[in-house]
Amino acid sequence: MVIILKNNPDQKQLENLISWLRSMDLDIHMSQGASTTIIGLIGDTTAVDMELINALDIVEAVRRIQEPYKNANRKFHPEDTIVDIAGVKIGGGHFQIIAGPCSIESREQVCQIALDVKAAGASLYRGGAFKPRTSPYAFQGMREEGIELLLEAKKASGLPVVTEVMDLSHLPLFEDVDVIQVGARNMQNFELLKEVGKLDKPILLKRGLSNTLQEFLMSAEYIMAGGNERVILCERGIRTFETATRNTLDLASVPLLRSMTHLPIIVDPSHATGISKLVKPMSLAATACGADGLMIEVHNDPAHALCDGAQSLTPAAFKDVADAVQQILPFSYKG
Amino acid sequence: MVIILKNNPDQKQLENLISWLRSMDLDIHMSQGASTTIIGLIGDTTAVDMELINALDIVEAVRRIQEPYKNANRKFHPEDTIVDIAGVKIGGGHFQIIAGPCSIESREQVCQIALDVKAAGASLYRGGAFKPRTSPYAFQGMREEGIELLLEAKKASGLPVVTEVMDLSHLPLFEDVDVIQVGARNMQNFELLKEVGKLDKPILLKRGLSNTLQEFLMSAEYIMAGGNERVILCERGIRTFETATRNTLDLASVPLLRSMTHLPIIVDPSHATGISKLVKPMSLAATACGADGLMIEVHNDPAHALCDGAQSLTPAAFKDVADAVQQILPFSYKG
Amino acid sequence: MVIILKNNPDQKQLENLISWLRSMDLDIHMSQGASTTIIGLIGDTTAVDMELINALDIVEAVRRIQEPYKNANRKFHPEDTIVDIAGVKIGGGHFQIIAGPCSIESREQVCQIALDVKAAGASLYRGGAFKPRTSPYAFQGMREEGIELLLEAKKASGLPVVTEVMDLSHLPLFEDVDVIQVGARNMQNFELLKEVGKLDKPILLKRGLSNTLQEFLMSAEYIMAGGNERVILCERGIRTFETATRNTLDLASVPLLRSMTHLPIIVDPSHATGISKLVKPMSLAATACGADGLMIEVHNDPAHALCDGAQSLTPAAFKDVADAVQQILPFSYKG
Amino acid sequence: MVIILKNNPDQKQLENLISWLRSMDLDIHMSQGASTTIIGLIGDTTAVDMELINALDIVEAVRRIQEPYKNANRKFHPEDTIVDIAGVKIGGGHFQIIAGPCSIESREQVCQIALDVKAAGASLYRGGAFKPRTSPYAFQGMREEGIELLLEAKKASGLPVVTEVMDLSHLPLFEDVDVIQVGARNMQNFELLKEVGKLDKPILLKRGLSNTLQEFLMSAEYIMAGGNERVILCERGIRTFETATRNTLDLASVPLLRSMTHLPIIVDPSHATGISKLVKPMSLAATACGADGLMIEVHNDPAHALCDGAQSLTPAAFKDVADAVQQILPFSYKG
Repeated sequence: MVIILKNNPDQKQLENLISWLRSMDLDIHMSQGASTTIIGLIGDTTAVDMELINALDIVEAVRRIQEPYKNANRKFHPEDTIVDIAGVKIGGGHFQIIAGPCSIESREQVCQIALDVKAAGASLYRGGAFKPRTSPYAFQGMREEGIELLLEAKKASGLPVVTEVMDLSHLPLFEDVDVIQVGARNMQNFELLKEVGKLDKPILLKRGLSNTLQEFLMSAEYIMAGGNERVILCERGIRTFETATRNTLDLASVPLLRSMTHLPIIVDPSHATGISKLVKPMSLAATACGADGLMIEVHNDPAHALCDGAQSLTPAAFKDVADAVQQILPFSYKG
Repeated sequence: MVIILKNNPDQKQLENLISWLRSMDLDIHMSQGASTTIIGLIGDTTAVDMELINALDIVEAVRRIQEPYKNANRKFHPEDTIVDIAGVKIGGGHFQIIAGPCSIESREQVCQIALDVKAAGASLYRGGAFKPRTSPYAFQGMREEGIELLLEAKKASGLPVVTEVMDLSHLPLFEDVDVIQVGARNMQNFELLKEVGKLDKPILLKRGLSNTLQEFLMSAEYIMAGGNERVILCERGIRTFETATRNTLDLASVPLLRSMTHLPIIVDPSHATGISKLVKPMSLAATACGADGLMIEVHNDPAHALCDGAQSLTPAAFKDVADAVQQILPFSYKG
Repeated sequence: MVIILKNNPDQKQLENLISWLRSMDLDIHMSQGASTTIIGLIGDTTAVDMELINALDIVEAVRRIQEPYKNANRKFHPEDTIVDIAGVKIGGGHFQIIAGPCSIESREQVCQIALDVKAAGASLYRGGAFKPRTSPYAFQGMREEGIELLLEAKKASGLPVVTEVMDLSHLPLFEDVDVIQVGARNMQNFELLKEVGKLDKPILLKRGLSNTLQEFLMSAEYIMAGGNERVILCERGIRTFETATRNTLDLASVPLLRSMTHLPIIVDPSHATGISKLVKPMSLAATACGADGLMIEVHNDPAHALCDGAQSLTPAAFKDVADAVQQILPFSYKG
Repeated sequence: MVIILKNNPDQKQLENLISWLRSMDLDIHMSQGASTTIIGLIGDTTAVDMELINALDIVEAVRRIQEPYKNANRKFHPEDTIVDIAGVKIGGGHFQIIAGPCSIESREQVCQIALDVKAAGASLYRGGAFKPRTSPYAFQGMREEGIELLLEAKKASGLPVVTEVMDLSHLPLFEDVDVIQVGARNMQNFELLKEVGKLDKPILLKRGLSNTLQEFLMSAEYIMAGGNERVILCERGIRTFETATRNTLDLASVPLLRSMTHLPIIVDPSHATGISKLVKPMSLAATACGADGLMIEVHNDPAHALCDGAQSLTPAAFKDVADAVQQILPFSYKG
């Protein structure tokens, strides 16, 4: 961290600042120029509050040099993390496709699609039981019953299952779920992050609609700080001025996150674009730039899905995507 | 709602669509042009899923005409809502200033500032007990103990108190709090919205960093749909490309929300800008364009606040703001 | 400027870097920590290319401390600039309202509105002759003829006139215009900026739709570097994800620009919001937070304007806005 | 276009509106519901000003159904356009890589890189003579002399050349240039678009930093409306809140533009990300989702480029990218 002082700083305040910084076990290097003084802080600055320093009268500016995350930081953990989900590995060269319906609607639906997507090449099964919906009048998911049906689909298909938690009070219902998803709107639900950080279960963490990559990794850090190191990151589009797609899929985040962190990174082209015909090209693009996996919505009849129908594929269309992805995979970016 | 069909739609699918729309008790008006057919839906379309219709093969486009919110809609409730907080009224011509520290740090601090801001013109007191912090290594607030101290400050000053809830499991601790704040990062925490919708207590709902005004009102609608009509909206800046301020304060939202809803609307210039010297001009601007109140961070010593120091005023600086606001108030926009 | 080096930098490259920096007459201060070396550059760094340094193998990060603009910088010019437009002063405590139609359509229209807005309180007259329109099929303005009509309105009303230039090849037509406007889409048309920088005429520079305040000041710097110091800045809304208003009016830019620069700052609430009923509240807000003036669209019959009708006021509605602005002005933020 | 009227519209105004719409040769279909009247307009609505109609007292809302562009619209031109550049074809299955330095700096540099990128697989050569730079104090390009050097490199290498025009007054200098680039900051420089629309030369049009896909196509429409149908679109990143990359590369725009228009679409990963190590993964991703080509910055010594060094590759690194792109090309999305 670098602190730039204003001209002619009050000496008493400067002494206070320096003794406070020393109390945090930081090495202090001062460079005095004709009109500017720069203080370089060397050591572990993760707990130093930049805005607090910035508010001091004698300070012109503060700049962070080191990343504020440790557990998620590739610098301190150079090897790729491989997350093992009931034997299905993701990360470190292991590529997986997670597929399934946006919403769980019935036993027949959820079991049939599980068998269909398994046959088409998915290795993990997703289905929404608790659904975050913008409108209180829209279908909110089958909730507890939905999780039960998902676990039946798991038994029927043999695929490990992923589903989203919306509140920490629901966590006991997720005991037999293989991967717990923390959705985009909960990426900064810090109480929830702390709770899932105490679990012995992989967490699929989706990037928030308006969150930077650094904030994304800080949320992973919340989970890891609790002891749970099995975090899978998921890019799912950010909110921008462009309205032709539901969100703007930020694929450059894939190789950039790769350099920042050792955690696996997957991409959800269905939610990112909100347009089913874009799922195939964006799945190919995500694979090409080095994603460790994809998360794709599949529905037995897209036109009749109770939610998010616009972004779902039929099992046949999904198979076409999965096959194309497998073809392109050997030629994808390896870093 | 208006549905535009593709050329030569499949007749069977069209019949299915129409009978499905009829089953929702909607009036259907069809306009057949040379190459385009338009279906107008008249009636209560709040529960109709646009994306689902949009996904149908025969549909070119869908456009919503009526707002998807009812309880929060000024059309159905033309009179301004006045929220009464232990005798302090906000909305419908009643203007109030909420002030207090970002974080509660000690009994002395929280009680002293309460007395200071009351003397300076605040009519409601705020203080953070549970703090949403981006980093797991940053101070997370005094939590339960913080709420106890806030209630002591309430007793000492006589000011009703506002504080933020971060998870629905903490709600029992908020029984004696006068207004429960739902923070920006929880604006779409739908499970929390449902729970506070069951309470008999005013809710201060902050706009999310990347949420549209319509989504903001849909979140108010979640609370109101549960029976709690005492919702106060708070504009606190949105995330944009501009980084000179922490967020971009969207003041046009004040008169625009005024036309969309009957709920009171306040503005938080402290969090919106993140720069204490901007609090005064933006407080004046917010008042001028018709806000029903302000929410301002005040700290006894800004440079030593444990969090968000950069945006806090001293009590003396706050008094200067409050006085200037009272001077400009008679000349503000009245609609 | 601060350069942070990677661990164990190649010594040859480091020497090259340092001798290159020295060749730019910069003072160099090195702070060597256990694992990080920081180079502080002190002197005039406006011409130093940060990205170039950032691309060097041995560099971890570069941070700019000083602003890259000089002529527009309040640090080097603490007094407010007052721009004199044929006797009408703006800035440094002088507040002015610029009003007039989006497009010039006929002699009667342009002269009548000039008399109307003068009577209602405007001191400068605006009218569009060259119109930037998104569609090639939309009305593109009366062009040369429009400027002639505007000059007739100037004669008829006695008001100095402001109009937009769209290409530097048209500048000869602007000889008798009092203020030349550079529109938002041309804020980074650097060739145009250089040309208007050679003129002896005030320039009204509008902020680009997606430009930061620093970029805005860099564009002012382009004009001033050519010798023309009479630049008036105009905030007119930025593009964000919010679509309820045409753009998001960033009013915090007014006091923030005030601290960064000595140039006058005005606000255009008409283009910013695109909604005529928001012009009054946002005019009051802009005045309250310290703007030096307003730019408001006025049309004799809003419903029949050939362009931008949605944001125009009638002369009577404009008078109501101008009167309310004058009432609030004495209570506005003075810094 | 669909116009939704307010309840109980004034009958005189309604008649005026309808006769005005009839005067534009539009078919009018009215649907009268209990509380809403919908007017459907069928015919060529490209010249109808939505905002003007929206401003009418009797109108609640207006929605466009048909795209406002014709020449660029795939609906009216289903076959892919293939642009022929001195025998090098792009679009309709023809994939090309454009490479070269950001800035032309000397004869040796520009000729050497031309030979290098040709050997590595580029089929078109780019080099900047006129450079849009944010700072007036930064290198502005070699200008006229730069174009001469670029033409020497064309002769030396045999590669057709692409270079950017910054103002229409410079166009005579571009006579022997093969493709004229209109940069992101000029995407809505409508006077320039009109001028290049009169040329018999391919135009490479870059997407503006904050422009929607529809606005992008409207700018192509400006060029095509002048008679020049040889427009190549280039996605080069948009401005968002994310600052980890210079811009956010919006790759979903590639397949989406493909469905909207018949024009070729290329991607510039260098400018989009501003980080040279991201050029390879994003080149692979762009190819995978169906781009017709790439535009990549190459420099003989990235660390010493006079501008944009951070995003440039060496010829050897470029060859690695070009080879990987050729390997993945057969497996890319074909629509």
